Amino acid sequence: MDKSKKISFAVIRRLPRYYRYLSDLLRDGIERISSKELSERMGITASQIRQDLNNFGGFGQQGYGYNVVSLNAEIGRILGIDHSFKAIIIGAGNMGHALANYPNFAGRGYEIVGIFDISSDLIGTKAKEDGDADWSVIRNIDTIEEFVKKNKVDIAMLTVPYQFTSAVAEKVVALGIKALWNFSAMDLKLPGDVVIENVHLSDSLMVLGFRLHNLQN
Amino acid sequence: MDKSKKISFAVIRRLPRYYRYLSDLLRDGIERISSKELSERMGITASQIRQDLNNFGGFGQQGYGYNVVSLNAEIGRILGIDHSFKAIIIGAGNMGHALANYPNFAGRGYEIVGIFDISSDLIGTKAKEDGDADWSVIRNIDTIEEFVKKNKVDIAMLTVPYQFTSAVAEKVVALGIKALWNFSAMDLKLPGDVVIENVHLSDSLMVLGFRLHNLQN
Repeated sequence: MDKSKKISFAVIRRLPRYYRYLSDLLRDGIERISSKELSERMGITASQIRQDLNNFGGFGQQGYGYNVVSLNAEIGRILGIDHSFKAIIIGAGNMGHALANYPNFAGRGYEIVGIFDISSDLIGTKAKEDGDADWSVIRNIDTIEEFVKKNKVDIAMLTVPYQFTSAVAEKVVALGIKALWNFSAMDLKLPGDVVIENVHLSDSLMVLGFRLHNLQN
Repeated sequence: MDKSKKISFAVIRRLPRYYRYLSDLLRDGIERISSKELSERMGITASQIRQDLNNFGGFGQQGYGYNVVSLNAEIGRILGIDHSFKAIIIGAGNMGHALANYPNFAGRGYEIVGIFDISSDLIGTKAKEDGDADWSVIRNIDTIEEFVKKNKVDIAMLTVPYQFTSAVAEKVVALGIKALWNFSAMDLKLPGDVVIENVHLSDSLMVLGFRLHNLQN
């Protein structure tokens, strides 16, 4: 991973998007693409694409374009597609259920191995709608310590209400989990070697509102 | 909105985050803040903050810092907090329910006025858990045309499965809706004067995985 450490975080944040588009191209049997064509598909400038992808050296060739196979593999490698991460969901409300049923995590190396809640109405019911997903039987939050001791857990996905988020986060970090994916409406911050991604759905909605307003005026 | 049109889209994308942090400061009674303090809270560089906020002219003063009240009001104005947008949700699965119950949309000017699905098991049930939210009674998708004709609808939030997304998007655009908030796993593109924000939850998860991997190695 030495090479990727030199890449700026702003570029890293754009990589999943490149990865999605390149994977779509491969699925369509397209094995090379110019920065111009990729630009038109992705809606970002060809110059930005060249600048971003230059970080990985030598994939674009004059008159040939990008080799989709190797570029996709390289970006996947940097993003850690070849690693596998085990995750638990804490909070089995609507968002917890949505994550439990999200179709694309497993194919990207993210396996959900458990889901926890505090509500006796939910504990014991299955969060995943189809069939035999035993991992999706909602567990009592009181059993999380034992669960994490027995199972390797890399990531906690937090979908608990705002007011409980800090306490839950501190608890799972104390159990040794180093990565938090936080859906509550607060930016979570914790000391020490913990990585946190805060998802703020309404940020995206506000950008949409801004664009709509500018369209109308 | 003339002024905001000069602001780059990259800055616009960061504004909701500033708005959240400034609103938190106001809630805590903090009325001025230096770029250094704001930098520490937000985890972005003071230089980036100064550069971003310079777009709005004159809010930062040497030895005083930013006036949180006016900066918050200005960013809110640019983002259109003072406008109100009416939205419908299409797809009353877990994600549709999560959006229907999301606590922070109304305070930012986004009012959800209807939710639609195709499933007879869902139609007629309430998507919002608490009390008397009549708007949250799930409607038959077949009635959407009539609904949109009778009600002003600015935004369609799409939480339908991948394979139906394009068809649903084309239908709502044909009904005159100009803004789509798309949660399916595909980047939606449509011709004409329609604005679309695509939400890709797994992009954020992949960045988390990348950061976790780098932490461990």
